[in-house]
Amino acid sequence: MPTADNTRDTAATFLPRYDAKGLLTAIVFDSATREVLMVAFMDAEALERTRATGLAHFHSRSRGKLWLKGETSGHVLKVEEIRVDCDQDALLLLVRPAGPACHTGATSCFYRRLAGEVLVSVPL
Amino acid sequence: MPTADNTRDTAATFLPRYDAKGLLTAIVFDSATREVLMVAFMDAEALERTRATGLAHFHSRSRGKLWLKGETSGHVLKVEEIRVDCDQDALLLLVRPAGPACHTGATSCFYRRLAGEVLVSVPL
Repeated sequence: MPTADNTRDTAATFLPRYDAKGLLTAIVFDSATREVLMVAFMDAEALERTRATGLAHFHSRSRGKLWLKGETSGHVLKVEEIRVDCDQDALLLLVRPAGPACHTGATSCFYRRLAGEVLVSVPL
Repeated sequence: MPTADNTRDTAATFLPRYDAKGLLTAIVFDSATREVLMVAFMDAEALERTRATGLAHFHSRSRGKLWLKGETSGHVLKVEEIRVDCDQDALLLLVRPAGPACHTGATSCFYRRLAGEVLVSVPL
C-alpha cells in the first residue's frame, strides 16, 4: 500500500519492510496454472532459507517457528521467482508445487467463494 | 495457514477470522490476465462496502480508515468474485481493474523481482 515514504517504490535495492512482528506477507502463485495457491508470512529467516534452498519456507505464527512447506506432506513448493511489491512489505512467490498446496488436500487454499452468507466450492 | 481449529476448513458458512487488529488479508487478482495485482487489508466495514458496491474497499493501516481503491485515481477494481481460504483469514478478490492497480502507475504492485540483492523490473 502506498505511503509517504517513496524510497522503496523505485529502489533497485531490496529493502524489505517487515511489520512490527518482523513479518512480510507472502503470496504463493502457481506459475503454470496461474492460480493463487495460498498466503502465509515470512520473517527474515524464512526468506533466507527459501532463497538458499529454492523451497518455500514460512514463519508459522501459531507455532512461532520456521516452517518448510511440505516438510510433513512432501508437498513442497519449488520457488522459481520472488517478486516484491511497491512498498516492499509483500512478496509474490512464483512456484511449481509438488502436490496440493492446502492442508485439506485442495490444490489451492482458496477453494470456496462467497455466495451471500454461504461458501460454495469453486472448480480449480 | 492450518491450525488445530478445523471448523472453518469445511464450513459452508462464512466465518471470517479477523486478526487482533480486526483485519483480513486481501489479495487482488485480475481475472482476465491472471496476474496478482496487489495485496491489502480489509476490516468488516471494508468487506461490507466491497460487497454492497461491487468495488474493492480496503482498510488503510497507515491512515486508519476506509479506503475505496481508485477513489482519487479513478482506477477502481470491479469485484467479480470473492474467494475465502481454508482458515478464513484471507480473501482472494477476482477483479476487473479500471486502470493500473499500483499507485506508481504499474499494472501490478509486483513489478520487480529479486535478483541477488537487487530488484529487476518484470514484464507484465
